Amino acid sequence: MKAAGLRAPADPGPIADLTLNAALVEEILSGFIAAETTRTGRRRVVVGLSGGLDSAVSATLAVKALGSAGVVAVLMPHRLSQLSSLEDALKLAKRLGVRHEIIDISPMVDPYFERFPDADRLRRGNRMARERMNVLFDRSAAHGALVLGTSNKTELLLGYGTLFGDMASALNPIGDLYKTQVRQVARHLRLPAAIQRKAPTADLWAGQTDEAEIGATYAVADQILCLLFDERWETDEVVAAGFDRRLVERLRTTVMRSQFKRRPPLIAKLSTRTVGVDFRYPRDWGT
Amino acid sequence: MKAAGLRAPADPGPIADLTLNAALVEEILSGFIAAETTRTGRRRVVVGLSGGLDSAVSATLAVKALGSAGVVAVLMPHRLSQLSSLEDALKLAKRLGVRHEIIDISPMVDPYFERFPDADRLRRGNRMARERMNVLFDRSAAHGALVLGTSNKTELLLGYGTLFGDMASALNPIGDLYKTQVRQVARHLRLPAAIQRKAPTADLWAGQTDEAEIGATYAVADQILCLLFDERWETDEVVAAGFDRRLVERLRTTVMRSQFKRRPPLIAKLSTRTVGVDFRYPRDWGT
Repeated sequence: MKAAGLRAPADPGPIADLTLNAALVEEILSGFIAAETTRTGRRRVVVGLSGGLDSAVSATLAVKALGSAGVVAVLMPHRLSQLSSLEDALKLAKRLGVRHEIIDISPMVDPYFERFPDADRLRRGNRMARERMNVLFDRSAAHGALVLGTSNKTELLLGYGTLFGDMASALNPIGDLYKTQVRQVARHLRLPAAIQRKAPTADLWAGQTDEAEIGATYAVADQILCLLFDERWETDEVVAAGFDRRLVERLRTTVMRSQFKRRPPLIAKLSTRTVGVDFRYPRDWGT
Repeated sequence: MKAAGLRAPADPGPIADLTLNAALVEEILSGFIAAETTRTGRRRVVVGLSGGLDSAVSATLAVKALGSAGVVAVLMPHRLSQLSSLEDALKLAKRLGVRHEIIDISPMVDPYFERFPDADRLRRGNRMARERMNVLFDRSAAHGALVLGTSNKTELLLGYGTLFGDMASALNPIGDLYKTQVRQVARHLRLPAAIQRKAPTADLWAGQTDEAEIGATYAVADQILCLLFDERWETDEVVAAGFDRRLVERLRTTVMRSQFKRRPPLIAKLSTRTVGVDFRYPRDWGT
């Protein structure tokens, strides 16, 4: 008999309807990329291709929006990354017909930790994510391009990403799609099977998988998040629908505690118009 | 006779009143730092000390808020930085009685540009600023601390800073103070004369000064920005008050075009609740 704490979380199956009209979503998101890129006077985006699903979907949508000449794929392995990740990213770049650049981040990441050899893997992973942001923004400057984001809604809500690292971009086409919805779009876009099938991972250390870290499958986590935050159900209602109470409570708390990752830096208010408080215009105010 | 375009911009002197009650501002801002740090369960901040005025004021306010044990000063010279900057930062850290760490960023910054030797100084400067952000966030993790920001209102409005670089922080005590107001607070706090007197510079390359890059003194720029954006004057009204029309128009355009630096990444909206659009809670929602 297994201890209760070790059981897989209850999964009553889909309660919220997360199915998409993937063709329509493709049209909306490629239109978003085209419109938001060209209105800044650019015709090109750079996207970090990790070999995973999210960046593959973002890059494919960008090719639909801007053509293959409008997309630069930047592959940024670290010496500890899976070689198969790089191979999958490279295959995708070739299949999309986009220019690609391979930039090994080890020479920039590793010297820092010679000074701090005791740093745990979380600190190492965050440094790698921020180094990749740094590279992507430099490549965007070199190419006169914008940085395309690749964080999905599940990650953004859970704060499962690095602030000013992979969460940073100019435009994010998939930030309002839960992971299970990104999968539907990937299927519709006929992404390579190797990319569709692989276990989601930040690939920051060996054996890392998203679902082990989140403590739930994306299928279950997305249901709970959608019911709590899109449908605004109470915790008790989500539990009554069949989900594990401890998991529901933990996910709600995780979303609330990570709010700082979804907000600009907090500025102390002194004047009548404070940046980020009551001095707020659309991002494209000046265009 | 000088060509009209080469004249110094007209300076009718102060029109908007930017004078502060510096003692009250000190009280408000040290209270802000104390409250916002402790409510996250932390008792400490890390601050990048550049040797310049803004970081000196932020760090001094943090010592007032949290005591000298509550502040870690991180000095991050690059081999091309002015040695005097490091010396001034070091002197200030000692005077404040705070722990300091010197982390040379050259070993992390330089390997990248071996690959891209043609990168101009703007790209090099942005990379350095983002590397410093990366170091600061790692040190904040190591110390269980928050990263204190050092961007003033003039810089934030003009977008005169590196997105996800020096503009990134957890808490920014001075983001609602124009540069000329930061100077008043510095005087009140009796910061070292060397720091109060020096020409403001990002110190990203030799000879760089803020005022040459902005094309106006801070005294004039702050007046124009305050009249345009705090007082909501029209361009014609600011010009009628005696300021140079071309400068007023250029500063207005600069503020509008840099709005993207003051907003989170743009997410394509698909659902009824989209992060950063209509899913918005205070930064401390979960605390």
